[in-house]
Amino acid sequence: MKLRIENGRVADAFSTKLDPATGVMEDYDTRIERYLSKLTSMFVDRDAAKEYLEKNGDTLIYEVYEKDIPETNGEIRYCSSITYPGTIGGEYFMTKGHFHSRRDTAELYYCISGRGYMLMELESGECRLEDMYPGAAVYVPAYYAHRSVNTGTGPLISLPVYPGDAGHDYGSIETSGFMHVVVEKNEKPELIENPRYGNMG
Amino acid sequence: MKLRIENGRVADAFSTKLDPATGVMEDYDTRIERYLSKLTSMFVDRDAAKEYLEKNGDTLIYEVYEKDIPETNGEIRYCSSITYPGTIGGEYFMTKGHFHSRRDTAELYYCISGRGYMLMELESGECRLEDMYPGAAVYVPAYYAHRSVNTGTGPLISLPVYPGDAGHDYGSIETSGFMHVVVEKNEKPELIENPRYGNMG
Repeated sequence: MKLRIENGRVADAFSTKLDPATGVMEDYDTRIERYLSKLTSMFVDRDAAKEYLEKNGDTLIYEVYEKDIPETNGEIRYCSSITYPGTIGGEYFMTKGHFHSRRDTAELYYCISGRGYMLMELESGECRLEDMYPGAAVYVPAYYAHRSVNTGTGPLISLPVYPGDAGHDYGSIETSGFMHVVVEKNEKPELIENPRYGNMG
Repeated sequence: MKLRIENGRVADAFSTKLDPATGVMEDYDTRIERYLSKLTSMFVDRDAAKEYLEKNGDTLIYEVYEKDIPETNGEIRYCSSITYPGTIGGEYFMTKGHFHSRRDTAELYYCISGRGYMLMELESGECRLEDMYPGAAVYVPAYYAHRSVNTGTGPLISLPVYPGDAGHDYGSIETSGFMHVVVEKNEKPELIENPRYGNMG
């Protein structure tokens, strides 16, 4: 169904159907697919990322289905976020992560399927990690950059919900990265400092 | 976990665990239980409600688990909403329903379990009905009063998410009701005009 927008607001009720097993959202407006070929610099071990690419071909790391809800204060934006399982150089597949353009806005991630973490960082460096599992509602407070990390064996599927006017700011993360990364050590996830922080571009 | 609040904002990340089968939220701050004895005037057939009460004793119609997130612009409030199955005088069990105090705010209901409808009405009388089923994300646009209606055989469980500063306004609904109600006819749900609209108090 096409959204009807009036004065920067959704004017008609609508619903979208999300398949809890796959995360696929019917009736989406925009689908964002993030393939490894565009994300090699996001992983700490860039060489391992290139090797993975040569060996496995281009690989879908995560994707997002969303409705084009106006970025207006008072509206609510949401999407279906699907991060696939895997590791590169020991680092778990994850989303790019972002700050909100309007820093003083929070976000709720309701986890539908899979296992992983929400990694959160303040610009001052403070770091938080919350478990994601079916039924977990993770609250990302205002001011925190945040990224989903899949530490499981199936897709990590969640429903992020955020204020219409939050906006996305990828800039500093694309160039500097997160200060911390989640890696697999002895078959368990471990949070370590990012040895390439500040030099991820 | 106790929320840490600073300057009207959630200052620490947290998560709550929601049992998708029962809707029970662990670590909630507030639990609202709505029993029939306090809701008899909400049903069109008030006599049937009183009979139901005498016959079955007091009955939990719906309940809500929530975290005490500040009602600040930029924050995101959410809860677990559980409406139990049943009918009174043919009318399905439902929530009281509300407008937002700040009318120009939307709300998203992600349905986790059960079957039913989201009934929505503008103050001008325009009415919308959207299906609720597991995986449905129902968008309640700004300005619409809204109520969950359980037409199924098990609890209708959803996760409502709304702007921190939306607020709840029950006033006009407690006295006037909705203009439309959902009743069971020939074992199917049907939307009809509320014969007692304007006189529900």
